[in-house]
Order: sequence, then C-alpha cells, then structure tokens
Amino acid sequence: MSKRQLSLNAFLMSTGHHVAAWRHPDVPAGAELDFGEYLKVARLAEAAKFDAVFVADGIAVGKGSNAAASGNFDTVAKTARASHLEPFTLLSALAAVTERIGLIGTVSTTYNEPYHLARKFASLDWISGGRAGWNQVTSNTPAEAANFNRDEHPEHALRYERAGEFLDVVKGLWDSWEDDAFVRDKASGQFFDPAKLHVLNHKGKHFQVKGPLNVARPPQGYPVLVQAGSSEAGREIAARSAEAIFTAHQSLESAQAFYADVKGRLARYGRRPEELKILPGILPIVGRTEEEARAKYQKLQDLIHPQVGLSLLSGMIGADLSGYDLDGPVPLDLPETNGGKSRQALLLDLAEREQLSIRELYLRIAGARGHWTVVGTGTQIADRIQQWFENGAADGFNVMPPWLPGGLEDFIELVVPELRRRGLFREEYSGTTLREHFGLARPENQYLPQRRQRAAS
Amino acid sequence: MSKRQLSLNAFLMSTGHHVAAWRHPDVPAGAELDFGEYLKVARLAEAAKFDAVFVADGIAVGKGSNAAASGNFDTVAKTARASHLEPFTLLSALAAVTERIGLIGTVSTTYNEPYHLARKFASLDWISGGRAGWNQVTSNTPAEAANFNRDEHPEHALRYERAGEFLDVVKGLWDSWEDDAFVRDKASGQFFDPAKLHVLNHKGKHFQVKGPLNVARPPQGYPVLVQAGSSEAGREIAARSAEAIFTAHQSLESAQAFYADVKGRLARYGRRPEELKILPGILPIVGRTEEEARAKYQKLQDLIHPQVGLSLLSGMIGADLSGYDLDGPVPLDLPETNGGKSRQALLLDLAEREQLSIRELYLRIAGARGHWTVVGTGTQIADRIQQWFENGAADGFNVMPPWLPGGLEDFIELVVPELRRRGLFREEYSGTTLREHFGLARPENQYLPQRRQRAAS
Repeated sequence: MSKRQLSLNAFLMSTGHHVAAWRHPDVPAGAELDFGEYLKVARLAEAAKFDAVFVADGIAVGKGSNAAASGNFDTVAKTARASHLEPFTLLSALAAVTERIGLIGTVSTTYNEPYHLARKFASLDWISGGRAGWNQVTSNTPAEAANFNRDEHPEHALRYERAGEFLDVVKGLWDSWEDDAFVRDKASGQFFDPAKLHVLNHKGKHFQVKGPLNVARPPQGYPVLVQAGSSEAGREIAARSAEAIFTAHQSLESAQAFYADVKGRLARYGRRPEELKILPGILPIVGRTEEEARAKYQKLQDLIHPQVGLSLLSGMIGADLSGYDLDGPVPLDLPETNGGKSRQALLLDLAEREQLSIRELYLRIAGARGHWTVVGTGTQIADRIQQWFENGAADGFNVMPPWLPGGLEDFIELVVPELRRRGLFREEYSGTTLREHFGLARPENQYLPQRRQRAAS
Repeated sequence: MSKRQLSLNAFLMSTGHHVAAWRHPDVPAGAELDFGEYLKVARLAEAAKFDAVFVADGIAVGKGSNAAASGNFDTVAKTARASHLEPFTLLSALAAVTERIGLIGTVSTTYNEPYHLARKFASLDWISGGRAGWNQVTSNTPAEAANFNRDEHPEHALRYERAGEFLDVVKGLWDSWEDDAFVRDKASGQFFDPAKLHVLNHKGKHFQVKGPLNVARPPQGYPVLVQAGSSEAGREIAARSAEAIFTAHQSLESAQAFYADVKGRLARYGRRPEELKILPGILPIVGRTEEEARAKYQKLQDLIHPQVGLSLLSGMIGADLSGYDLDGPVPLDLPETNGGKSRQALLLDLAEREQLSIRELYLRIAGARGHWTVVGTGTQIADRIQQWFENGAADGFNVMPPWLPGGLEDFIELVVPELRRRGLFREEYSGTTLREHFGLARPENQYLPQRRQRAAS
C-alpha cells in the first residue's frame, strides 16, 4: 500500500475509558483485575489489525484527588481506578498469547531507574518478538511522590530534565550490544565477541550508570519511543527523540496547531516529519444511527456520580473546585499548576469558549478525561477521523473505548470497515514488529559509526 | 495424602545450570532470549507437577567477575550469563500460558523500591491466579551497584537492615486492601468500601512510603516469601518472615546443621517449623546406568573453559585467585568478603576437607555454583533425596537441571517416578495456588485484628 495509512492503538483501561464505565451493565465486575478480560480486548484489537494496545499508568491510588491526598478516599471509592494490573506484568502476559499487535506501556521516568526500565523493555521486546513500545511520562502528583520517599513531587522543569537524561541512559544501555555481538560458537567456547560490547559509563546530573545491560539489543533496536506530555518541555523531548506522541485535543484547530508546531521542531534535530507519529486520543461512541449513539452516550453520562465528576475536573485542572457552585461558571483565574500544564490551559479555553458551568465542564470531560469525544454513526466518526488525518491534525489515533469490551466492539464493527473502504486502514498486517506497523525505521546502534570509522582508517 | 510430601522447584536458567551447558550439543543456540524455550521447560515441569519454576537474577553483566568490573569481559564472553530474560516479564508471560505451576522470581531489595516490587508481585499474583513467589535477595556485587548510581555496594549489615524494612513495607502495601474491600456495587456507584482501605504511612530509616497500593490484595494474601541468603542475617530474616529458604549444601551433615539451626529460630517469632520450607539446591545428572550418568557429567565438565572455571571460583569465593597455581592448594587464609559470606565459608571448608587443588575445586563447583551435584541412576538419586528429606536436611529441593531441556527431562523421566513410587511426591496437584502446593496457610491481613477488636468493643 502506497497510500498513507492511519495508525490505530486500542487504549486498554480495565473497565473502559468513561469514568462510569464500570457501572455499565455489560461491563464484567472485577474486569480491572481479570487478565482474561484484558486479553479479550487485546485479541479483539489484534483481529481488527490495530497497531498496538496502549496501557496508561499511575503509581498511587487517587493520584489526581486532593481529598485522597489528605486521607479521604470517599470520592475515589466511587471510581474503578484504585486497583488494576501493572503495565509490565500485563503486557508481558499479553505478549505470550498474542502474535502481531504492538504492546505500549506507560512508565514514569521520575520514580524509576533507567537500568530496570531498559532491561524490562528489552526483555518484553524479546518475549514479544519486537512488539514493545514505551510511553514515557514524568508523573505529576504528590500522591505518587509520597510512595517513593519524597514529600513533594519534583518541579516540572526538573522532571523533564531528568526525563531527557533518563532517555539518553536507556538508549545507551539498549546499545550495549551490537546486533551481531552474540556469536555462540560452541566449538571454541566463545559466547559473545567482547569487541561488540559497549560499556556506557554514564555519569550525569541525575544518574550514574555503568552498564552494560544484561539483555541483548532488542529486536527493534529500541522499543518504539512514545511520549505523552504536550507542554513546551514535552514537545521538545518528543521532537528530539520520540517516535509517537499521544496528545489530547478537543477541536480540529487545536490539533492542527499542535501538529504543525511539533512537526516543525523535528528539522532542528535532523529528523523528517514522518519520523514522529502524532496520535490524539479519541473516545468514540458509535451507534447504527445517530440516535442510538446519543442514547449510548447519555446512558453512560447518567451514571457519573457528581462527586466523581467534580473531583475528576479538580484533578485535571490542578485546583480544588469543590467550594464553587456546580451550576455557576468555571473560574478562569486559577493559579498555574506544577502538574499537567497543557491540560489546564486546554480546559480553561474550552470553558471560556463555550461558556460552560462547572457541571457542564465535568460532564464534558469526565468521560474522556480531556480527550476528543465523538458520538455518531460509523460513517460520521470515520468522516471526522479522515478529516483530522487528511488536514494536518493527526497521523492516527489512540482509540479510547468508552466501556470494554462493548465500546471497542462497536468501533471495530462500525468504524473500521468504513475506514478500510476509504483505503485509510490496513486489511492485514504487513510486518511483524510494532516499528513495522508504524512504518518506523529500526534505529542503528549509536556505536556503529565509530566502528565504521575505525574500519575505514 | 497425609504423608509428608516433597516440594520440588524447577530452577530455570536459560541454557541450564552447568556453566558449560550452552556448549552442549542438545541446547538450542539463543535459548537465553527465546521465550519459547523457557516455556518448553516450564510446561515440562508443570506436566510433572512440580511446585514451581524458580528464576534467579542479577542486575549486571559479569557481576561476579573482578575482571569484568575493570572493563575486561574476555572471561564473561565465554559464558552464557551475560544476557537473558528479566524475571517479572518472563514470569508474567509464563503465567499466561501455564495453569497450575508456581512462579518464583528473584528480586533484589537493595536496588528496588518497595512500591514497585509490591505492585508487580501483586499484579503477577492476580494474572497467575495466585501462583507468585518472591525470592528476596540483597545483591552482592560492585557491578550491580555501578548500574544504580553508586560507587560501592552497601555493606552486608546495611543491606540486610534495608531488606528487613523493605519486607515490612511490602507486606503493609499488600495489606492496603482487605480481601472484601471491593464491593463493586453498580447500583449505588460504590466501587470499594473506604473503611476497608488502609493507608500504610510508613516512615522508616530507609523508606518513606505512604500507600495504599494500587492493586487489590493478592489472591494469596502475600505471594509466597522465599529467601536465599544463608548468612546469620539471612537466617534471621528467614526465621522471622520467609516461607521457603533456598540454600546450598554439599553434604548431608551441613544441610542437617543448617536445617536444625533455621527451624530452631522459628519459635522465637511464634512460628511453627512447618511454616518455613527448607529447599537446598540439587544438580542432578541422571542416567539409566551409573556409567551413563558419569559419562553425561564428564561430557559437560570437559566443556568448561579453564578461564571460566577459575573466574567463577574467584567470584564465588570473593577473592581473585588468578595469581595462584591452578594445580596448587586453595589458599585458606582469604580475607572475609562483604558479598556472600556463607558461600565463602562453605567453599573453604570443602577445599580443606577434601584437600582440593584450585582446578579441582573449580571443577567441583563450576557445574552447580556451590550446590549439591548428584550423579547416578534414578534410584540412586531418589535414595539421596529421600535420605535428606527424611533425616532433617530438607523439605524439598530446588532442582537445577545441568542443561535444558534435556537435564530436566532426564530427572522427570527417571527420578520423579521413583519418588512417586515411594509416596514422596504428588501424582496430581491438589490445589491451584503456590501456597497450596507448598502447604502454606494464606496470611491474614495485618489490619484485621484491629477491626475485630473494634467490632467487639
């Protein structure tokens, strides 16, 4: 296929993406801990030839909740987010029982060590035959800090500085071994060629890591590098080294501006625009008719407990809104947050533009956590996807099923065939690795140029 | 079955336990990175009704090698230990494609954070339906320290102090949720009962961890707690809280002394002797005749590169022996090591008792890394196992196949049926969790006594 193709990830989130999904009658109770349910969803996505499953993460209970931070879990107790499977264990288990679909896991650079992370992703890449991807985040809540020996989470700038150094170390560790270092010559007893082993010896501001990694270079060279921060610092890290960026936009215009800005930064790092996939989130609610779709959406919206909606909004906007009138206007003069900066600006912009009350705003975002919610028929949703894809707003999407597995089944049954009819999405996998699905080149080992130079001189 | 039963773990080590296993003609090249090969071995062990597979770990290349530490990997390059799959990813993948066998992974307390570890093991326990076990080690080499921001590894006493606190935190996190905390009441919107959530708020010398854990209490309460240090500090930690201890003994007498000592410590912690399983390592080389077994052993021994044998011995004994005559006596006045203390004493004792040269000692231990090597027929090996089992030396064994999968196939074909004939080993699993295989009780949540007290008053 020569026509540019959409990338589609299925965003796995236990019971589904809508905050009230767990109350939906079709969602199995306990799905958040049931590997069989995660597997069912991964197999649906694989049968539909999605590029990858995508798993979010956080390392605390009620991490976005101010009340929970001070010991009050009453609101968190009305959501299904407090307990779920951990990404490395989940994706490794999925690797054993899927064949082709990519496996993207979110892991924080703030509360991890690069050696552990490089090693686990390398191991996952070997187990899955080259299907691993790492969604790099920096964590942004005090609740997470408190689980890792800190009183406060580090400042935004410091987290991103650490993230940049972290990524350099991880890449250096993945390059510990040249691809053909392991000769395994039983006759001579030579298992590897020491000349093809490279000791990193990293000594930086945040890390001191000697190496080498005790796993061979991953089948993909590096697992696919995804980044999920859309702030200034996040964009710059993405432009420098990410291969896909997961982002949140409510409007075509906002997505286009982001797309142009991020793609425009690549040349400075000697990269071409197609080397970074831009993947906004989309929460699709699909019906056979528009009415059916609307009814499905309303059914979910009606299940949102007001306490949950308000708390979710407060967490996302980085300020406690519980003192305000639910049906009054959203206060626009909130203090700037040390957490997700880009998200706060996005929400305030939306509230101002559409003159939303606090309740209206939480109803708008509670479902999709600030992502793009599209309610309609398969054709209508395919139209919107095509519009974004062909007008400089997206290279593909992180599809966030409102509830699982039904919300994904709807998308696969009603939207995917329409995308195929338009020649926008594959009928069959053409490659076996996540890099191949995304159309990304396999990175060369950073030590090879030295070797070529030595060979030439 | 009322008769006391052996516990048997299959020690998975990529190409096999003998240091030259990878050169064996029947061992597939690249097995150390091939999930399919690990799975083949796990399925063999499961079909034979083993209690668990057991995975060792280290977090550096050539960690026991002084030469490697100073950048010379020539010796390490003659072994197959430099690259292999990581335990959490490997065991999670195995969990998805096995049904009953336990999954024990080694993870260090020195270079990890308790929140990450508690969470991954809880998740693995959920994915596997209660089959996870944690083999707790403290790491003991400078090569590992250098991968985690340190110039030197912490002292033995400090590592064990940290290990004790680490374990307390991990248990506290696993108890974050009472077993029935998640009510998932769709009608009212109550997902969990906050009264059954416990915030740890740990503030200790080594860790400050607030909690709660973002995974429900594991199916087993706690994954089975294994401990692998046999020093004074290791024994004390085992007596206080381990449920199985993996240990190395070359003789019945040494194993009996260890068994009596460790079991004798349990009462001080209010525990009964059967609450801690003592599992020495055994490297069995099995033939249909004694001659065949000897020939199999010799074939492997002949494949040991002298450079590898000497280096392995130096690493295990905690001193560089490369300056000594290979065929001269083992120097008995070595400085005490900060690494594995108990191992050094064991080796020096063996060398003195049997008047071994350095070459003889390395040939003796290179195969089994200080563990008990038994060469013989199925009946002969079953005799030795029964002798240890019935004479206060062992509750079972970590079976370390010399090469894989052949060495395990031999044991299963020739030794296991003999053990069954004697009524010492199960014909079928009677339970589904690792705790049930081991005959260990499910631990009660540490917050329950408080709750009962409140209910009574």
